[in-house]
Amino acid sequence: MATNKNKEKVESWFIKLRNQICQRFEEIENNFHHNEIREKKGRFIRKKWKRLKNKKGGGGEISIMKGRIFEKVGVNISTVYGNFSKEFSKQVPGCEKNPKFWASGISIVAHMHSPFITAAHFNTRHIVTSKSWFGGGTDITPTMPDKKNINLFHTSLNKTCDIHNKKYYKKFKKWCDEYFYLKHRQETRGAGGIFFDYINTNNWEEDFDFTKDIGKCFLKTYPKIIENNIKKTWTKKEREKLLIKRGRYAEFNLLYDRGTQFGLKTGGNIEAILMSMPPKAKWL
Amino acid sequence: MATNKNKEKVESWFIKLRNQICQRFEEIENNFHHNEIREKKGRFIRKKWKRLKNKKGGGGEISIMKGRIFEKVGVNISTVYGNFSKEFSKQVPGCEKNPKFWASGISIVAHMHSPFITAAHFNTRHIVTSKSWFGGGTDITPTMPDKKNINLFHTSLNKTCDIHNKKYYKKFKKWCDEYFYLKHRQETRGAGGIFFDYINTNNWEEDFDFTKDIGKCFLKTYPKIIENNIKKTWTKKEREKLLIKRGRYAEFNLLYDRGTQFGLKTGGNIEAILMSMPPKAKWL
Repeated sequence: MATNKNKEKVESWFIKLRNQICQRFEEIENNFHHNEIREKKGRFIRKKWKRLKNKKGGGGEISIMKGRIFEKVGVNISTVYGNFSKEFSKQVPGCEKNPKFWASGISIVAHMHSPFITAAHFNTRHIVTSKSWFGGGTDITPTMPDKKNINLFHTSLNKTCDIHNKKYYKKFKKWCDEYFYLKHRQETRGAGGIFFDYINTNNWEEDFDFTKDIGKCFLKTYPKIIENNIKKTWTKKEREKLLIKRGRYAEFNLLYDRGTQFGLKTGGNIEAILMSMPPKAKWL
Repeated sequence: MATNKNKEKVESWFIKLRNQICQRFEEIENNFHHNEIREKKGRFIRKKWKRLKNKKGGGGEISIMKGRIFEKVGVNISTVYGNFSKEFSKQVPGCEKNPKFWASGISIVAHMHSPFITAAHFNTRHIVTSKSWFGGGTDITPTMPDKKNINLFHTSLNKTCDIHNKKYYKKFKKWCDEYFYLKHRQETRGAGGIFFDYINTNNWEEDFDFTKDIGKCFLKTYPKIIENNIKKTWTKKEREKLLIKRGRYAEFNLLYDRGTQFGLKTGGNIEAILMSMPPKAKWL
């Protein structure tokens, strides 16, 4: 059950995970550089925001780093609460009669300088209305897909899911493939991952553990994928390919992404919502 | 009335205007260059497309140029016909009982290398269902707004509108300001222009003349604005500002533009629809 104590536990976990991920990413900035990139090693810059002017409504904190390995990476955490609009309440489970909500989450998007290091997205969240559930997902968008690292990503997710439910990985992988799909181009956004929502098995601790494990899996796996590919040099043509891939990424976020659309159309924090946009993109 | 002969007249006009505009833009490529840009002078490349595989449904022709003054400019013409889907018919005047439609139009988007030369959009169209009407608009998106050229653009449009109806300019300028608005950022896309739709005064020839005159106005005015600003050099910082402005342009097209959203979600020609996307864009 989503007691106040549980809400606190969730929020604390997202903060802890944020700290660990930022630290790990800064370590990579300390330890490596590309010969192609003249930037200094990056450091996260933090910025708090409030949802409402009157402070009742919660808010969040953006952490953003522009570095020499990470071209742009954003790590957002937020805890917001209040009442949904009448219109929106209709779409949210448990809000049919009561528009009250509480939501806490962490969201990460990393765009890399190197065309050989995949972009990555990760987010997990806990939503409480008259119902409560966990949701989230993580997926990678390589410009130059290589089997070894795609397998590493999927195998780690598969193993993590299997600890909790043998059906999770297959189900959530399919959900991811269906969600991160550019219908107008009839192509997937990237090399997939997992996507899940409305997780409530009537065992709050177990669902929370699953959510935490997906976070730990990302913290372990994505840095490894980065380091596996960090020594590869690239050509102008390969970098060009990355910028075009990023154009597709921008298309997905603005045309299809539920979070982006919802956030922008309901007056969310622009900077936090659009943090996922690529630093540079190209269209032919 | 939209007789077959009138449809032919409209289609021929759009082809003629396309030819004149492409020629004028190529002239600019012949006559000028920026010291900052190493590209060769541009030439339009044309590409035809068909709406349906079986050839019944019409199609269009893309003209695209990447040059030394025009970083990317697309000039699309199309004439398409058939039946709208049930869902879409509900939204289109004159399609309540009969989904049959015919539509012809020209559409231009120009993104320039120089931050001192405004981007521009122009389109006009004629739609025939059981009703018929003209629509279109033109607007500019300067990175470095300067009064002189914004005034030139608006004054030309004002004069052209006034020939046809003294109420047009004020009404269509307002419509433009309302349409090209980024709600999530609470900012206009650029420096405005005009936007009009559902024009049918019961005088087909007059409405067609108005549509033609807006085309001629664009053909005369935009090249003049380009040439007024062509000798200005720019800094890296000013170019950066242009790329960020273009990010906003991409946001507008993907989040709000009716044509883009409709085209992409109903399986239109991707290349033609997304021709409006900036060649390069940036998000901070």
